[in-house]
Amino acid sequence: MRVFIAGIDGYLGWPLAQYLTARGHEVAGVDLMLRREWVAEMGSQSAIPVYTREERLDAFREQYGKDLDFRVGDLCDYKFTRDFLAEFRPDAIVHLGQMPSAPYSMIDQAHCVFTQHNNVISNLNLLWAMREACPEAHLLKLGTMGEYGTPNVDIPEGFFEVEYRGRKDYLPFPRQAGSFYHQSKVHDSNNTMLACKIWKLRATDVMQGVVFGTRIEAMGDDPRLRSRLDFDQCFGTAINRFACQVVIDHPLTVFGAGSQKRGFLPMRDSMQCMGLAIENPPQAGEYRVFNQFEETYTVVELADLTREAASEIGYEVEVYNYDNPRQEMEEHYYNPDRQHLIDLGYIPTHDVKSEVKIMIQDLAEHKERILEKREILVPDIRWDGTRRRSEVINRRSEAVKS
Amino acid sequence: MRVFIAGIDGYLGWPLAQYLTARGHEVAGVDLMLRREWVAEMGSQSAIPVYTREERLDAFREQYGKDLDFRVGDLCDYKFTRDFLAEFRPDAIVHLGQMPSAPYSMIDQAHCVFTQHNNVISNLNLLWAMREACPEAHLLKLGTMGEYGTPNVDIPEGFFEVEYRGRKDYLPFPRQAGSFYHQSKVHDSNNTMLACKIWKLRATDVMQGVVFGTRIEAMGDDPRLRSRLDFDQCFGTAINRFACQVVIDHPLTVFGAGSQKRGFLPMRDSMQCMGLAIENPPQAGEYRVFNQFEETYTVVELADLTREAASEIGYEVEVYNYDNPRQEMEEHYYNPDRQHLIDLGYIPTHDVKSEVKIMIQDLAEHKERILEKREILVPDIRWDGTRRRSEVINRRSEAVKS
Repeated sequence: MRVFIAGIDGYLGWPLAQYLTARGHEVAGVDLMLRREWVAEMGSQSAIPVYTREERLDAFREQYGKDLDFRVGDLCDYKFTRDFLAEFRPDAIVHLGQMPSAPYSMIDQAHCVFTQHNNVISNLNLLWAMREACPEAHLLKLGTMGEYGTPNVDIPEGFFEVEYRGRKDYLPFPRQAGSFYHQSKVHDSNNTMLACKIWKLRATDVMQGVVFGTRIEAMGDDPRLRSRLDFDQCFGTAINRFACQVVIDHPLTVFGAGSQKRGFLPMRDSMQCMGLAIENPPQAGEYRVFNQFEETYTVVELADLTREAASEIGYEVEVYNYDNPRQEMEEHYYNPDRQHLIDLGYIPTHDVKSEVKIMIQDLAEHKERILEKREILVPDIRWDGTRRRSEVINRRSEAVKS
Repeated sequence: MRVFIAGIDGYLGWPLAQYLTARGHEVAGVDLMLRREWVAEMGSQSAIPVYTREERLDAFREQYGKDLDFRVGDLCDYKFTRDFLAEFRPDAIVHLGQMPSAPYSMIDQAHCVFTQHNNVISNLNLLWAMREACPEAHLLKLGTMGEYGTPNVDIPEGFFEVEYRGRKDYLPFPRQAGSFYHQSKVHDSNNTMLACKIWKLRATDVMQGVVFGTRIEAMGDDPRLRSRLDFDQCFGTAINRFACQVVIDHPLTVFGAGSQKRGFLPMRDSMQCMGLAIENPPQAGEYRVFNQFEETYTVVELADLTREAASEIGYEVEVYNYDNPRQEMEEHYYNPDRQHLIDLGYIPTHDVKSEVKIMIQDLAEHKERILEKREILVPDIRWDGTRRRSEVINRRSEAVKS
């Protein structure tokens, strides 16, 4: 199949281009290369070195024996987007081309407005461009489990049967996103659902859990083919950040009690799931929602798993609770479904510890790059619109040991 | 109270400034004057002449004995918005400053993107500006009943008690908006709900029905104080358009079967409801939703009511069904609540026919202005992204007579 990847330079986009090419698909894509700028703006850098677009393309050609049509461009530029789609004529479009950080969207008015403008307009442009240039293509849009928030009932995959005052309907499940970034993804989901209804586009809307990991098989050992791995407060997600902390002997930073439950999945599972969705497209007019995660864990469970995995390969690290800069429920019910991908053949990787060990070993080579930016491991962006560095409120692992 | 009106030059903003001033409130406001341009872009004009800002301000001073601080400015300009709020220090902010047309948002990519950008960013800017300049103020945000779509269950006011797989929660009621404009309003509602939660702002989110009417009492007879009244396919809503059609003997244009049910309310009820909400603000951190309409009617019921009212004052007019350029359910259940405003003292006007008669008499003076633009009374903007003029599919009133 012909697969267009929006956000092809990113943490998931770059491995996905390789995963799909290795599976025999024809890939093209676009990126505005902004993730590199945002991480620099946070005073950080990727733990794993990120090569230039040209170096990545050279390595791609050597590894996969073909050129990759990876262009620098802006999805907010409608003409560029439509013309590229018209030229490439994709069977599937994977939309990863967004600003993906909740804290970044909460920094101030300018970052909030940038996030919603960038994410909502780029997604609208993709929908209009599909209608005009490739109405039969399948949009695989990456959303987030965060769109649902943490309701006190089970979370179905997008829609649910409701009985209300004696009448029934099958309705979109209510979204309660907890940041302006997460809200931008809800807006995109709503716009996409409408486009499928009125234009008979087809879309899979993936409510993805938090992805962790440093590699997939196809990459081999060429450093130019590796993906980035961030550890700053905006772009460094929980397990990725923990693994970086392990290698520099920094306490694992758990926010609040750490009893927040979330869905997680390794990068290799994210690739597997996206591949399955692409190879099993929906019908014309169909808007389907997949919840995509391997399993739900509390943040503390993951910190403890990370600490145990680290210990088994010779790294001893503490787990500290920091006051939570976010506003989120720490004690809550959480039971999301994730049957749709399993029905398509998804086989979850259940061994988080062995994945974490690989990550630690990969990251150990780049210890100096993490050490250089050690001061950015503790967050200061608060949900009330202020900046204040979080304080240690509990030395959890010391308490556990004693 | 000190009330800031965003969109003070508009169909509702201009009468609201007068209604609130007549009730003793201190009013200021902003408008970018875009509605005037959009209607011209549609090849149309307001049936009731619209005077310049300066003429309106002169008349305001003569009628109400005070100056109105009505500035030309853009809510998408954050600094302007924040500085104006900081200077005026409102107790309440009424947000009417948006692009309000579903068909306009469906014309093409550029109109869709303009609509969502303008509406979402201006609302975000208001939220951030409130947080910074007047966090105690009450945001009265005008949404639309169209955010809910037409579910097969009762429509509560914003939230509902859900039982799902044996567990219960009180959740936002699912939104199923049917145009990119309506989706922009859903996005605004979601962003506003989040801002109340994390910043303890207070907001009333009004899901307003379709407003009709040409006047409120406070205006008196000065033509410079009158509001606009549009009849084009984008800005002319059902009853307003019907009343214009009556005075030029054009068939009343019902789209499809006309069995779509919607909530409607006269302009004077809209003013009454907004006044009640302003004078009874929510608590800090509270996000409350009011459904605001006098009664639900099918479009055909309203066309028939208009025809009867017209006949009683000497105008005979036909009702024709045109093929529906929108994609919407024509046969559907519709039973929204509207108790919250009644609890605050709202007394609905139930006499639509007498309101319509006043409208016809007001509009008869401007018959020539409507006749000049007669050709724009039949819509051509279609929900599939094309333009094609609707055809008559049934001459309903002839069938009724025979």
